[in-house]
Amino acid sequence: MAEINRRIVLAARPHGEPNASHFRMEEGRVPHPGESEVLLRNRWLSLDPYMRGRMSAAKSYAEPVGIGEVMVGGTVSEVVASQHPDFAAGETVVAFGGWQDYAVSGAKGLRKLDPRVSPPSLALGILGMPGMTAYTGLLDIGRPKPGETVVVAAATGPVGSLVGQIARLKGARAVGIAGGPEKCRALTEVFGFDAAIDHRAADFPQALAAACPDGIDVYFENVGGAVFEAVLPLLNDFARVPVCGLVAGYNDTELPAGPDRSPVLMRAVLTKRLHLQGFIVWDFADRADAFGRDVGAWLAEGRVAYREDVVDGLENAPEAFVGLLKGRNFGKLVVRLD
Amino acid sequence: MAEINRRIVLAARPHGEPNASHFRMEEGRVPHPGESEVLLRNRWLSLDPYMRGRMSAAKSYAEPVGIGEVMVGGTVSEVVASQHPDFAAGETVVAFGGWQDYAVSGAKGLRKLDPRVSPPSLALGILGMPGMTAYTGLLDIGRPKPGETVVVAAATGPVGSLVGQIARLKGARAVGIAGGPEKCRALTEVFGFDAAIDHRAADFPQALAAACPDGIDVYFENVGGAVFEAVLPLLNDFARVPVCGLVAGYNDTELPAGPDRSPVLMRAVLTKRLHLQGFIVWDFADRADAFGRDVGAWLAEGRVAYREDVVDGLENAPEAFVGLLKGRNFGKLVVRLD
Repeated sequence: MAEINRRIVLAARPHGEPNASHFRMEEGRVPHPGESEVLLRNRWLSLDPYMRGRMSAAKSYAEPVGIGEVMVGGTVSEVVASQHPDFAAGETVVAFGGWQDYAVSGAKGLRKLDPRVSPPSLALGILGMPGMTAYTGLLDIGRPKPGETVVVAAATGPVGSLVGQIARLKGARAVGIAGGPEKCRALTEVFGFDAAIDHRAADFPQALAAACPDGIDVYFENVGGAVFEAVLPLLNDFARVPVCGLVAGYNDTELPAGPDRSPVLMRAVLTKRLHLQGFIVWDFADRADAFGRDVGAWLAEGRVAYREDVVDGLENAPEAFVGLLKGRNFGKLVVRLD
Repeated sequence: MAEINRRIVLAARPHGEPNASHFRMEEGRVPHPGESEVLLRNRWLSLDPYMRGRMSAAKSYAEPVGIGEVMVGGTVSEVVASQHPDFAAGETVVAFGGWQDYAVSGAKGLRKLDPRVSPPSLALGILGMPGMTAYTGLLDIGRPKPGETVVVAAATGPVGSLVGQIARLKGARAVGIAGGPEKCRALTEVFGFDAAIDHRAADFPQALAAACPDGIDVYFENVGGAVFEAVLPLLNDFARVPVCGLVAGYNDTELPAGPDRSPVLMRAVLTKRLHLQGFIVWDFADRADAFGRDVGAWLAEGRVAYREDVVDGLENAPEAFVGLLKGRNFGKLVVRLD
């Protein structure tokens, strides 16, 4: 076992876009597990948009990371020492080990990796938190019916790509929004979307409207901003909008210029009888078994595809995360720590 | 039978607040019912905020009233001649007779008045569309749990007053918002609200916060504007917001000045996992029996109170309606046409 634990801490709270200066690599001694704890060697680190929220002090559904504290994050980890009867050295677990080589953890939040999950990094993507976010948000809030139109942005990401594929499995039409022609091509060719729209194109709102001739019944919201503005007029009566993320605004330092368009939104909610509902995946913890069973089976049967964007080395996590917020990744962004 | 049918038609579409010039009283001959039709003498006319929407050409959940067409509206009416086997002269019905003395109607949308409804005007209020709006919006979307806090504005109106009373019957705490001390007094003394807040007071947001020490779990939205702005920061995680109306903005001719606050709203939806849902009462048509049974029983048992604001004479309907949009009525606004 190495003597040194490298860890990336939050050095400063970003005002706007984060950059390398907001993170700091530190080295410390590998910690020892206390009673009922395990020592983990993190092998895979998940990078996800929600982490931007943890870098800010603003109130949200979770506590912010403190200045000087290790950045939080889901990991696939190996148990290297255990003081807990349920876990033994050598076992692989899904944990919340953070941006570091080693972590000490209690049993809470540890889950033994299903050996069928291969590669293990899938437990951070299609078979993990992002996959379950797509599954629950789409099925429990979006509730697409056969023949309906489902729209999702950031559609080559781990959430969006599964939203579109589940929509199609349920008989709905899936329209994906992504940035650039390469990602749009993957939407139709890899993930089987019915249509792909490039939000960077000058005629984006018109192209989206053309791709949704029967309007939009479910808009899975994970970006906000200009995409939502283009979606709003296309929403059908009784459309459902699971609100999962608003990544387009995560780096905003001030509100957009006026006028105040919130009455437009509320009037649409009223006259179209829209159903908007915010959620995080843990709100649907009781759906974990159904998710694992369904998506595991679809994956095994080749009925859903996934794409990973693998970055090597803990030291490259900050730059990869900054790029994630700009849409530079292509597929689920994971860091290989070995 | 009088030879003359007086009717109030839409003379012009208002830009901003409607006034008398947007209506015109016309006189015509009393129409004759055709095959399967009945001739109605309207006795009571309901005036409701949704009618402002019908005066505009903007797309909504219902077609606008055409220029020169009779203003639409619910009525309690007497059948004076019938060509329909199910209805006989002398019967009293709830109809959509409009702002006029006489109307010809098909059977669709006619409902015989339950003789237990006394006075008959209650069929336009607590036992009619507004009552069912409160019942379904609160119970089917708001779903208050015992001990939760329910907030409603326009709370002395027929919808708001029943929302608060049903909330209390379900074990929740009811906080009502109204304009002026007299209405606020009625909220606690007549309708039994736990607290009443005057939205005209300079310290309205602070007073609302003080009246909701445990936050807000259900906000029944029927006004929008400054009230919603004060409510939004007080909403608890997982709060439900049935969106029933936005009367504060119905006369607006332009959007409020910037900045654009819609990201604030969407961020609240996400981080608090709010559930916003627009509805109109007819979306819950299958709940009509449950509504009639429950509210009828509560009324008979003296467990819910109501208040009517009765205006005499069809000719006074326009002025009364203009006042309704300004909150000048006090209770359910009905026009007695006899």
